[in-house]
Amino acid sequence: MNNFEFINPTKIIFGKDTIGKLENEIPKDAKVLLLYGGGSIKKNGIYDQVKTALSNVEVIEFGGIPANPEYAKLLEALHIIKEENITYLLAVGGGSVIDGTKFLSAAAYYDGDTPWDILTQNIRTEKGMPFGTVLTLPATGSEMNSGSVITRVETKEKLAMGGPGLFPQFSILDPQVISSIPQRQLANGLTDAFTHVLEQYMTYPIGALLQDRFAESILQTLIEVAPKVLKDPTDYKAASNFMWCCTMALNGLIQKGVPTDWAVHAMGHELTALFGIDHARTLAIIAPSHYKYNFETKKEKLAQYAERVWGITEGNINDKAYAAIDKTEAFFHDLGIDTKLSDYTKDYEGTAEEISKRFNERQWMGLGEHQTLTPDRVEKIVKMAY
Amino acid sequence: MNNFEFINPTKIIFGKDTIGKLENEIPKDAKVLLLYGGGSIKKNGIYDQVKTALSNVEVIEFGGIPANPEYAKLLEALHIIKEENITYLLAVGGGSVIDGTKFLSAAAYYDGDTPWDILTQNIRTEKGMPFGTVLTLPATGSEMNSGSVITRVETKEKLAMGGPGLFPQFSILDPQVISSIPQRQLANGLTDAFTHVLEQYMTYPIGALLQDRFAESILQTLIEVAPKVLKDPTDYKAASNFMWCCTMALNGLIQKGVPTDWAVHAMGHELTALFGIDHARTLAIIAPSHYKYNFETKKEKLAQYAERVWGITEGNINDKAYAAIDKTEAFFHDLGIDTKLSDYTKDYEGTAEEISKRFNERQWMGLGEHQTLTPDRVEKIVKMAY
Repeated sequence: MNNFEFINPTKIIFGKDTIGKLENEIPKDAKVLLLYGGGSIKKNGIYDQVKTALSNVEVIEFGGIPANPEYAKLLEALHIIKEENITYLLAVGGGSVIDGTKFLSAAAYYDGDTPWDILTQNIRTEKGMPFGTVLTLPATGSEMNSGSVITRVETKEKLAMGGPGLFPQFSILDPQVISSIPQRQLANGLTDAFTHVLEQYMTYPIGALLQDRFAESILQTLIEVAPKVLKDPTDYKAASNFMWCCTMALNGLIQKGVPTDWAVHAMGHELTALFGIDHARTLAIIAPSHYKYNFETKKEKLAQYAERVWGITEGNINDKAYAAIDKTEAFFHDLGIDTKLSDYTKDYEGTAEEISKRFNERQWMGLGEHQTLTPDRVEKIVKMAY
Repeated sequence: MNNFEFINPTKIIFGKDTIGKLENEIPKDAKVLLLYGGGSIKKNGIYDQVKTALSNVEVIEFGGIPANPEYAKLLEALHIIKEENITYLLAVGGGSVIDGTKFLSAAAYYDGDTPWDILTQNIRTEKGMPFGTVLTLPATGSEMNSGSVITRVETKEKLAMGGPGLFPQFSILDPQVISSIPQRQLANGLTDAFTHVLEQYMTYPIGALLQDRFAESILQTLIEVAPKVLKDPTDYKAASNFMWCCTMALNGLIQKGVPTDWAVHAMGHELTALFGIDHARTLAIIAPSHYKYNFETKKEKLAQYAERVWGITEGNINDKAYAAIDKTEAFFHDLGIDTKLSDYTKDYEGTAEEISKRFNERQWMGLGEHQTLTPDRVEKIVKMAY
């Protein structure tokens, strides 16, 4: 097991009818900017619950944060934060709204030339404007971590940021929100959480026995609840387990003491930036090819995953490892998620070269747990995913 | 799944040669009371590492905190805290030293008549004196939770306390400390952590699928590493997994959203108070009888545990559940832990009646996950454990 440090100060408030607890979490003298997305919260009743809970606090609203939170749009919110002397941010949404809020939390206290520097210069935020979240879409885990991914449409860039100052102070997780989420988003959430676990698990054995089992526990539970969530999003047992899995998949716990990969995300982000493909779907496109390309270095963990998560006991280590990749791809298909780039766009020729070129330009010379995934290898993996 | 709230702000610093990191965690202007136990840290080198790391801070020492931290001894430390205007506490030890330090953290800021009230009146500490820990004995999980158990020899009492103000600010976990721990203490630690998980798991199904699997993960890992830790405490892979299991067994995570029992601890504490039997061993005495006595209400989880943790696939639910109790008892025996009260004392007659009487006096009328364990039932369970 590698040495590690772990701290996660976010307070989780989980369960039925918990949105009203907002009232106790935000300082009475706060001036709140309420951030949300496309407005679905106004249809499903969440907006009303939030507004009721905030009735004794001064609130300004900012809606319209898109999926893949867009830099230009967030600058509008930053302008309001400064003009209105906002002191507290409240994200009501999924990963995009929460990630956008984290950017604003950092940017509100940033005194450099332009807040874009935070992304391009990897500036870690030690202290951000305090914020909380009401999660409306389980998927990214952003509600209990300190990371964020921001998109800039004009340059087709999608970049990550973070820092210890960017943990939500609290996050409210009411699994009943799942009942009004469209199937497409549910499938995305399941895929996203599943791949988050794989990125922290599918590397090589390092003797972190408990972390391995925790990771496998999340995968097993997602596999168990996925068909139930899709069939009946009002199934509270399935919904609550789905929601808690998404949070635990990326709150830092399972990555402690182990090598992590994240190359699937690095490549996937480019597909979103280039084609606007849903984040989760880009992961499903890249993951199978990535595991096949890096088979030799990952096969021990692939075989362990085959045995423990998929119950595959037949064959040698190679057989099990290959079968596990097939099972993973089939799982995505069962969710209604296509796993080839050509399923999403006819304009895929040259994509691998373009992504390779971008990685070269950013000097991303060695991705993956062994830092051996050079841009030319990335090109091959993306081609395999056509 | 039940509704829950979860927050755990303790910073964990885990790994080889991490004790020196103390230096960065304690404020430079702090006046520190360094608390430890019987002095083993002076033989195994931990004391020297701690003192080196603290060389730029003002430190007063207080050693001699016994196993089952004793109220009278802790009052001596409290006197020093007040006389010397101590501002920060550092526990270097196992669960007893850390629990004692938590009592002092609470008592230092308590302004009632006598700090014993904190224990007898169930006063929750919202804010205690800040403290950190260097863990020298994995077992109790106290290094990453906000609970504590204090003993008062003069009244033969052992009582619990806690509150959100009693999380350590940081805990340093260097698995290398395990190499100098005596076999008896290692066996105790393994038993303690194992039973902590059982107390939060062996109840009834409530649809908390991930929490169940996490609990099973800890149990499986403890079973896997236990013989290795006992055979060779310098085996870093085994030691590091043992240590992380102990912390994860009782840092609050696996109990969220599920019913918990804790009756084994309630009864076990009385055996320590009455006979001075090691805490962990009292749990091993009580647990098998407790599970047999409450078989009907626990058999679903017992059978799940049988299947997933012990790989028992034969027989019906009752067969599996009974086999799991036998496996648990055999596991304790393999650790060198006896599981009958008569193995520890010849003076056991009347113990069950005495414990039942104490529970009656304290009006503990319904222990266990169903709050149905009345003092007369406790009497029967303790008798079964003779």
